[in-house]
Amino acid sequence: MIERIAILGTGLLGTSAGLALRAAGFRGAITGWNRSQEGAQVALSVGAIDSIAADPLQAARESQVVLLAVPIYATLDLMEKLSGVLGPEHLVTDVGSTKAQISAAAARLFNTPDRAAFLPGHPMAGKERGGATLGDADLFRGAVWLFTDDPSAQRSSHSAALVKSWREWVTAMGSKTIDLDPARHDELVAWVSHLPQFLATALSALLEEEVGGAPELRDVGGRALREMTRLGASPYSMWRDIAYTNTEAVEAALLALEQRLTHLRENLRTPALRDEFEQANRFRRE
Amino acid sequence: MIERIAILGTGLLGTSAGLALRAAGFRGAITGWNRSQEGAQVALSVGAIDSIAADPLQAARESQVVLLAVPIYATLDLMEKLSGVLGPEHLVTDVGSTKAQISAAAARLFNTPDRAAFLPGHPMAGKERGGATLGDADLFRGAVWLFTDDPSAQRSSHSAALVKSWREWVTAMGSKTIDLDPARHDELVAWVSHLPQFLATALSALLEEEVGGAPELRDVGGRALREMTRLGASPYSMWRDIAYTNTEAVEAALLALEQRLTHLRENLRTPALRDEFEQANRFRRE
Repeated sequence: MIERIAILGTGLLGTSAGLALRAAGFRGAITGWNRSQEGAQVALSVGAIDSIAADPLQAARESQVVLLAVPIYATLDLMEKLSGVLGPEHLVTDVGSTKAQISAAAARLFNTPDRAAFLPGHPMAGKERGGATLGDADLFRGAVWLFTDDPSAQRSSHSAALVKSWREWVTAMGSKTIDLDPARHDELVAWVSHLPQFLATALSALLEEEVGGAPELRDVGGRALREMTRLGASPYSMWRDIAYTNTEAVEAALLALEQRLTHLRENLRTPALRDEFEQANRFRRE
Repeated sequence: MIERIAILGTGLLGTSAGLALRAAGFRGAITGWNRSQEGAQVALSVGAIDSIAADPLQAARESQVVLLAVPIYATLDLMEKLSGVLGPEHLVTDVGSTKAQISAAAARLFNTPDRAAFLPGHPMAGKERGGATLGDADLFRGAVWLFTDDPSAQRSSHSAALVKSWREWVTAMGSKTIDLDPARHDELVAWVSHLPQFLATALSALLEEEVGGAPELRDVGGRALREMTRLGASPYSMWRDIAYTNTEAVEAALLALEQRLTHLRENLRTPALRDEFEQANRFRRE
């Protein structure tokens, strides 16, 4: 039943969503808007969108489903603006990496019978670099796509049907959906996504200081080092809003890791090191 | 000129070396010894060795090159025993992950004109699990193979020629060789190899505690989390000797990372976070 989609933000995730929708057989219209014209042109040229919109609000009004694929504060800003121009014939959904603030804004601005529906989403997929040129129809294949929907949302039957249909398209793009409470979402991703990123950033920054001046020595670490520092290439611009909107949970995860490293360091020659390896092995059991 | 090689220890590295030598065109004899008969049988069945030796010392005596591919303390133990039975017609080399103690033992036990040569080596290649069944002819392809040879070694011309020939075979197996001082080696690998391992172990152990009970949530992290915890599968048995023989350098690296994580945690909402990302980006520059 979805025939017109507007993708606001044609970076890595927005462009990949357009490509994945096409690969999954979506035949309706996909219009795209991007802050920089260059990113929109790339998305158009690879077939992720079939038209470039000049105005995001007008593009949203003319679509049934609006996919917000911009950073978190830009998402919150667009939510405010969209709530004034959309109605119960629309669904807005997003791909933001933290969900507490977005879900709270959704409850305030959407999800009543006379307003548009808002379905907070978060595909657990990405790359260490962004941009439309890296767009990939298979980005979401095999990934988990989290939703933090509000069970008390009062939607029009029309927008409720759009929610159901969008969930089906997410599955068709190859993702497995999991529903979580927004607070639980933010706590969970602090452990399994934000902690690994900030850790890779800290490790890469430290190693740049220690061996960065000798490129031939950087290669010594081989595959293991490359994997452990791949996310070190992630730009601040992708992570700033996450650090700001999930600060407490990330702080708690970082502190716990610092304490764990201290424990390991103090036990390099004691049987506690064996316990630590065995506990780690359990996490990686098949 | 090398026609007879003995591989003492047919685990992942020993078996892979046998396979890589064959793939590189080595046509001489390769005999193998392993503490467990099962590992030797696997190495034989995949063609990494062409005979199983019952006694490591006798196998060494009957070979020109002896490759020690056992844990570090077992390497030191075999070095003592081999020094009593080998002479200037032999070369012993190893694949141990720390080199200060092994290089010191080499200076004490080998490398005079009337004794065998010893070339301390360390291929920067491996997998998060060991064993002959994972043996791989391409394991060393594209990897760096470090040597910490003693420039003051006084070798017979025969054993010096074996050293030269073994270095050529290492290159033929696809590795790039780099020569380092033993102390510098141990300091460097503490940063680029041991730190990533102990970090992955600590992260995996922590996450087992936090989300290990909910396998569906472990999957949420996706590729990034899988990469950052892959080494969490490494067994204690592979890392115990490294922790014991490179304790100070690993302690220093872990402490530095703890401090870096504290700094990052205390600056999640300040411009210092941008600096940290930019420094990390430099480490991953192409």
